[in-house]
Amino acid sequence: MACATTAAFASRILSRAHPPVLRRSAAFPFRPSSASSIGYRSDVSARSAVSPRLATARGPTVATSGARARVAAARPACPCPPLPRARSSLIPHAAQDATKTKGSVETHTDMSDDAPKTLKHAADRYGGVIVDPACLPDDIEIFADSLHASVVAWKEQGVRGVWLQIPITQAHLVGAAASAEFEFHHAEKTHVMMTRWLPGALEENHLPPNASHQVGIGAFVVNGEGKILLVQEKRGPAAASSRPNFWKLPTGLVEQGEDVPDAATREVFEETGVNTEFVSVLGIRHGHNAPFGKSDLFFLCALKIKDGQTTHPISVQEAELAAAEWRDAKDAFESEHIEKGSHMDHMYALCAAHAKGEYDGMGFQALPAGFGREGTVVTYSNAKS
Amino acid sequence: MACATTAAFASRILSRAHPPVLRRSAAFPFRPSSASSIGYRSDVSARSAVSPRLATARGPTVATSGARARVAAARPACPCPPLPRARSSLIPHAAQDATKTKGSVETHTDMSDDAPKTLKHAADRYGGVIVDPACLPDDIEIFADSLHASVVAWKEQGVRGVWLQIPITQAHLVGAAASAEFEFHHAEKTHVMMTRWLPGALEENHLPPNASHQVGIGAFVVNGEGKILLVQEKRGPAAASSRPNFWKLPTGLVEQGEDVPDAATREVFEETGVNTEFVSVLGIRHGHNAPFGKSDLFFLCALKIKDGQTTHPISVQEAELAAAEWRDAKDAFESEHIEKGSHMDHMYALCAAHAKGEYDGMGFQALPAGFGREGTVVTYSNAKS
Repeated sequence: MACATTAAFASRILSRAHPPVLRRSAAFPFRPSSASSIGYRSDVSARSAVSPRLATARGPTVATSGARARVAAARPACPCPPLPRARSSLIPHAAQDATKTKGSVETHTDMSDDAPKTLKHAADRYGGVIVDPACLPDDIEIFADSLHASVVAWKEQGVRGVWLQIPITQAHLVGAAASAEFEFHHAEKTHVMMTRWLPGALEENHLPPNASHQVGIGAFVVNGEGKILLVQEKRGPAAASSRPNFWKLPTGLVEQGEDVPDAATREVFEETGVNTEFVSVLGIRHGHNAPFGKSDLFFLCALKIKDGQTTHPISVQEAELAAAEWRDAKDAFESEHIEKGSHMDHMYALCAAHAKGEYDGMGFQALPAGFGREGTVVTYSNAKS
Repeated sequence: MACATTAAFASRILSRAHPPVLRRSAAFPFRPSSASSIGYRSDVSARSAVSPRLATARGPTVATSGARARVAAARPACPCPPLPRARSSLIPHAAQDATKTKGSVETHTDMSDDAPKTLKHAADRYGGVIVDPACLPDDIEIFADSLHASVVAWKEQGVRGVWLQIPITQAHLVGAAASAEFEFHHAEKTHVMMTRWLPGALEENHLPPNASHQVGIGAFVVNGEGKILLVQEKRGPAAASSRPNFWKLPTGLVEQGEDVPDAATREVFEETGVNTEFVSVLGIRHGHNAPFGKSDLFFLCALKIKDGQTTHPISVQEAELAAAEWRDAKDAFESEHIEKGSHMDHMYALCAAHAKGEYDGMGFQALPAGFGREGTVVTYSNAKS
């Protein structure tokens, strides 16, 4: 990620904003909470613009031991253009100007050379700022000084929330951010997002939370003989070794960006080799004990064998499963592991009713997104229309 | 979080494991993927047990500048008992033993004093290890050396995935972990989880992903006069200032651990002061452009005014809303901002059908969790039973 213009990086991050209706509280990056910052955006943009010289490419701290050498060696240089670090006025402005790249100049104004420079950033729509992750100083001290100076300036300007995304290639900066009272917000493989709510106790922290849910699917597939597709786990808490004779529906996680019908047919194919088509959602379970303290939403899906076939050969995914077979429904529905009256007993009752043609579940509709956005979104309901 | 026994911390982390059915792929912390590590757990436990002396409490690195001093000053001491750092054999074993706490001894064996110590950890159920986050060395060099030695040992033992949770109070260690090829996995305010998949390219990385979804609600409430509860946003993309005359349903995010009906009634009360009861889920929308690159599931809920009342005074949440009123349905359903045929047009059609008594939506059932777990889980379906 090269150092881009402020406008460009803000657009890149803000483009993940939510559809502008029905999810106000999820709008990125801030959930509005008070009138104090209405129309504040342009003020912040104008007053907190910073020098491009912040985009300093310094080598890593001198290594002092084997361990530190490994740390330093693995740290890449800052991807921003190698501009001189100007902490005094000894470097002529003309020379400094000569090092500016076209892309990083347009949104900046220079500040006094004597003070640490504030970090390159852009305003968001809720009175906060987003620091440009492509232009963080690589040197810990410079970064810490700049962050400190930035926070002081932002506080004076009445900035509310600060979003500081640190690439894993600059993970050595995380400690300095934590020391500057930044909290973790979320992380993906290649970066961690940290935040600080500058109003402190004066105003409730309205920064939106990180993702709260996993979404899973279970697949109910019946063949022409009335047998259902069941599997036995190889490992984990549902493993056949710890729960003898425990047959269950194929299950799996919905991947990020994937729709439920696609996830259901994908998982069935991966685990059993059976090609299926999505029919409906029979029921949904909402649980609150998912991994990492998260919640989960589980979609129980009815599928049918593709192209009207009455059965399909099974190819067991041996890495994950001990077995996969077409079996009598009672092997799952009447399992000793399923307590009567429990939520799974209820889920299986929905399956049984569906198999008898007495219950359809919810269909899905892929509809235009609307609000000037391209593409479709999937909705589920049991409306007949 | 004090330094606990290996068994205790593993139990604490592993207790977040998933219900052992229908969500195999979400089992914490690993999704099983090959037969190579079946029954491996006890081997790992026995062979990789480490010395409690790793729980070293050293002061922070000497500060070398103002910035570094701030970093160092904010760094608390390791919460583990202050044991001597024994990298040579000069400290008599008897003295070392005297410093051991009862709790941290039982799962450890001592190793050579000449080599860096491996990090305190426990095996998980899938051939991986979980490093004890309460007992990370505070010194970056010691941590980096220990992590390096640990990875070497784990690789020799055939360990698959490594889970390394770093508290924000030790955020200065994150850089060293990244240098040791750890990736970010997820983060909460007070910690970041990093992972490394040791089989590398030899086996597909089957570590479960981080949370992928936000869950939101929209609330459809009709009073006795057929007016519906609508709001105008104060800020953000749905703000009345940017979308004139844009009335919409009250919306909000489901909080972690919260059920959809509770979230819907809570948001309506917070935003409008109207006390409501949950009736049903009219429809669900699955979108893939939520903040931070995540997906979202949006539950459109039908609510009714509590206790059979036909109307309720409105108290606008002025921090977030420009207005909240009982208004004609057409102000939302026939809004110029709602494209015909779009998903919101469909959602509003579900509301209209519900208001006419022609569509019920999905009810919910709070049922026993089963599988030996306490409490209930909520399921949604449109089954009549």
